[in-house]
Amino acid sequence: MSRERQADASSGALAAPSRAGRFFEDFRLEEEIVHATPRTVTAGDVALYIALTGSRFALNCSDAFARGLGLPAAPLDDLLAFHIVFGKTVPDISLNAVANLGYADCRFLAPIYPGDTLAARSRVIGLRENANRRSGIVYVRSTGSNQRGEAVLDYVRWVMVRKRDERAPAPAPAPFVPDLPGAVAVEDLAVPAGLSLVRYDFAAAGSPLAWEDYPPGARIDHLDGMTLEEAEHALATRLYQNTARVHFNAQAQKGSGAGHRLVYGGHVMSLARALSFNGLANALKVVAINGGRHANPCFAGDTLYAWSEVVSRWEIPGRRDLGALRLRTIAAKDRPCGDFPDKDVEGRADSSVLLELDYTVLMPRRAS
Amino acid sequence: MSRERQADASSGALAAPSRAGRFFEDFRLEEEIVHATPRTVTAGDVALYIALTGSRFALNCSDAFARGLGLPAAPLDDLLAFHIVFGKTVPDISLNAVANLGYADCRFLAPIYPGDTLAARSRVIGLRENANRRSGIVYVRSTGSNQRGEAVLDYVRWVMVRKRDERAPAPAPAPFVPDLPGAVAVEDLAVPAGLSLVRYDFAAAGSPLAWEDYPPGARIDHLDGMTLEEAEHALATRLYQNTARVHFNAQAQKGSGAGHRLVYGGHVMSLARALSFNGLANALKVVAINGGRHANPCFAGDTLYAWSEVVSRWEIPGRRDLGALRLRTIAAKDRPCGDFPDKDVEGRADSSVLLELDYTVLMPRRAS
Amino acid sequence: MSRERQADASSGALAAPSRAGRFFEDFRLEEEIVHATPRTVTAGDVALYIALTGSRFALNCSDAFARGLGLPAAPLDDLLAFHIVFGKTVPDISLNAVANLGYADCRFLAPIYPGDTLAARSRVIGLRENANRRSGIVYVRSTGSNQRGEAVLDYVRWVMVRKRDERAPAPAPAPFVPDLPGAVAVEDLAVPAGLSLVRYDFAAAGSPLAWEDYPPGARIDHLDGMTLEEAEHALATRLYQNTARVHFNAQAQKGSGAGHRLVYGGHVMSLARALSFNGLANALKVVAINGGRHANPCFAGDTLYAWSEVVSRWEIPGRRDLGALRLRTIAAKDRPCGDFPDKDVEGRADSSVLLELDYTVLMPRRAS
Repeated sequence: MSRERQADASSGALAAPSRAGRFFEDFRLEEEIVHATPRTVTAGDVALYIALTGSRFALNCSDAFARGLGLPAAPLDDLLAFHIVFGKTVPDISLNAVANLGYADCRFLAPIYPGDTLAARSRVIGLRENANRRSGIVYVRSTGSNQRGEAVLDYVRWVMVRKRDERAPAPAPAPFVPDLPGAVAVEDLAVPAGLSLVRYDFAAAGSPLAWEDYPPGARIDHLDGMTLEEAEHALATRLYQNTARVHFNAQAQKGSGAGHRLVYGGHVMSLARALSFNGLANALKVVAINGGRHANPCFAGDTLYAWSEVVSRWEIPGRRDLGALRLRTIAAKDRPCGDFPDKDVEGRADSSVLLELDYTVLMPRRAS
Repeated sequence: MSRERQADASSGALAAPSRAGRFFEDFRLEEEIVHATPRTVTAGDVALYIALTGSRFALNCSDAFARGLGLPAAPLDDLLAFHIVFGKTVPDISLNAVANLGYADCRFLAPIYPGDTLAARSRVIGLRENANRRSGIVYVRSTGSNQRGEAVLDYVRWVMVRKRDERAPAPAPAPFVPDLPGAVAVEDLAVPAGLSLVRYDFAAAGSPLAWEDYPPGARIDHLDGMTLEEAEHALATRLYQNTARVHFNAQAQKGSGAGHRLVYGGHVMSLARALSFNGLANALKVVAINGGRHANPCFAGDTLYAWSEVVSRWEIPGRRDLGALRLRTIAAKDRPCGDFPDKDVEGRADSSVLLELDYTVLMPRRAS
Repeated sequence: MSRERQADASSGALAAPSRAGRFFEDFRLEEEIVHATPRTVTAGDVALYIALTGSRFALNCSDAFARGLGLPAAPLDDLLAFHIVFGKTVPDISLNAVANLGYADCRFLAPIYPGDTLAARSRVIGLRENANRRSGIVYVRSTGSNQRGEAVLDYVRWVMVRKRDERAPAPAPAPFVPDLPGAVAVEDLAVPAGLSLVRYDFAAAGSPLAWEDYPPGARIDHLDGMTLEEAEHALATRLYQNTARVHFNAQAQKGSGAGHRLVYGGHVMSLARALSFNGLANALKVVAINGGRHANPCFAGDTLYAWSEVVSRWEIPGRRDLGALRLRTIAAKDRPCGDFPDKDVEGRADSSVLLELDYTVLMPRRAS
């Protein structure tokens, strides 16, 4: 309760119970934070996610398809689950964030079905004050779990957070930066219990292409474009109960450098993944996010396009029915991706690039 | 059927079966009106309500949380239920309303769960022609009930309704104005059967503050702002099947004084309640609406802020686990509420104030 | 797999797995096409459909009402099912369509309930190259089926599709144009098994008017107007997983003749049907679409109005509880329909007319 502005115990009067968010000084290494508002996910969330993204991956759309692969029902889209867990962390972690710096080591664990209740908590795993002493970097490992306490996803993110009082800064904690993997290792990928792609229905899924058809280095233009409206990203971001004000308060944003509400970066991830269906229809499940970078801000009115590169093609130990692809999907705005916009020689993203997402998917292998 | 323009029985020809709404002359004291379109509420409505408002109250978001408090599942948000019942009354009561004048004596009764079917009826409890003889005030008590015929909510509202023909007005009915309570009395508040807050999870709910922490007179700035788009309020209002044309027909509104579609006042209530989570996270259930005033019209593009005042703090007879707070929540537009915009000395609302809502909530008490 | 740009078998490299859609040369008479992404429909889709259209037909809104008529639950709105099936056909049939020319012989068969999984396939039943040799007309019969393989709906549409290479056109197939009925015959209409309107609740449904009250030739102004926003039609069209780029890509549309995203014509159909509730509240179920014409394009910002004409009134063989009406519903933009805008003497639609939909509904008969 230390971060609440509390009732004055002597008068019984309530000063102000509202949360303005944590500042850098409020975080302690190894601290555990329980995030508010457990959320039962339902068929309503699934339908809204389709309406907001146009996603068409058969595994998440069809109970019949999922049952044909050994699952009890269509599991929740992995990114929808990510956003719901992420949203819960915002009021405690990033309300005063200057910037969302990165993601790493995100694994999707137990599948989530409508009716499951998701809760989230975070552990502070790194802290480093910036040289200017006005802000610092906070590393957290956030975990989403279901009503049985099973982990459903787990990831690290790091954000730059302002200090409460820049003129009289508190002493900085000893700097600690965690070791993070460049990518989730194959042996750490979780294949859902019971999932078998032996009888995978390629026609229903929308493409005849299998894991074998995607060699490392291959680049895929996803062709389609999708224009984004204010109401759409605001609906999505509220659905995830993400309260970051940059997404909602147009009046406050007028006075900011951006001038407009920023689109939640996770919505850009979801749109890129939905666009990637055209070319990667059988990338049926995201099992890991290895990293992500929001290269430029996204605003309502932008038209999003995407392309992907196959980074690696991995066998899954003990499995002949499925394999993993490590992908890099780039979302660009107002620019078709037939020429694969990317970085310049100094590693700077093209000005049209919004997102670079490094992730790992499961894909059916051809029957041998 | 008297208010339908009917088939001409002699010719068998249909003149016009569409409803243009009732006029003041069409109401009779003590008349009962059955409203159309029973509605099964579902997880889809719940998800949309979250996407439209960003509401985060744990009781309405999590089956697991609700079960921990003795309920069978997460009940429907009280205001969502209110809007669905209200919407059904519009075609019969307020399609020709000049103004929605007030609400009173609204009680939330049996909890509503996804799968329940809501129906609505109204009883005319007051009529008073205006001095200008061009319109009159109609008072109705509207009741929502579930598929077992149990009342789920019940409220009075009064509206100013035009007369059909201003030049040849029908004789006015004897004026009758009902007695209405200033607030629902504590002993009339309905605590859901089975609800126990003895094991209330403050961390999951998002705040350590209990009923004891909110003394009468306390004022709370809810801090956050939320900008509203046309598509958002139109989606909300259609979800409630509220057909009032001022919310939907931009072409007709261009010719009106407003110039734009008006946002349904109930959506402003919902946004204010959702914003109030930041500061009142444990105000888990609305049990009464004592009154409400839409001080100024709300339009798309407005950024809403809110603050609340604790009007009264009441014990609930026989309960140690929970108490009631009577609150006044004010929603303002385009203006943060740190200085609590309200009324001037003559009782006129500040020009930024959209809504003043007087309502009563349940809140957990601290274990003694 | 012939229409995929495939992996080069010799190098193992993937050229481009994304689909740019079929061209006229890619269709073969009698060919069967299995469309991607089976879709489990849920209460989430139902709620979104209400939020997007404001539809109020009691049969689709209330499980209790549906059970009172002998059905197990509220069935999915017929047009919602139509759009979901239609959406699946788009990537295979009409991605390169120049124009959607018509619909015919659409029958709604087994009712669909939340939890059912819809899949779609099409059979090419006609092909005719245009005289200019740059495009041709493709006729398909598309069928939606549920997870038990029962047909839920079935319709013919024809579209004008570009040829791949206009300068070196492939030889044209022998022209074949199928025979299509002007309207689905009464004896081909499917009344859901178990449905009985003997105890139909006219008050709950919203109108006392029965089948007998709608003589052929009657015209009904539906009075209400509804303004459409970009986010709304985009949400609807993504919900149906319809990927036609004219609806989504504002950037590409800027360079087109239209200048803006086109509203999916099916959304106009749904809005017209929803508006028709005011005047046709007891037209409880669509059993056939006899034909449809999108007379003018619809854009965001348009305010839609509608009116209907009773074309025919048919008894259903063996039934005293219900009858069929063949209706023609016209949707117009930015123009109230009190004077029934329609065609000029040469059969050209009024410039305000967006849609002319010829369809058949079931309606309760008065107890004799």
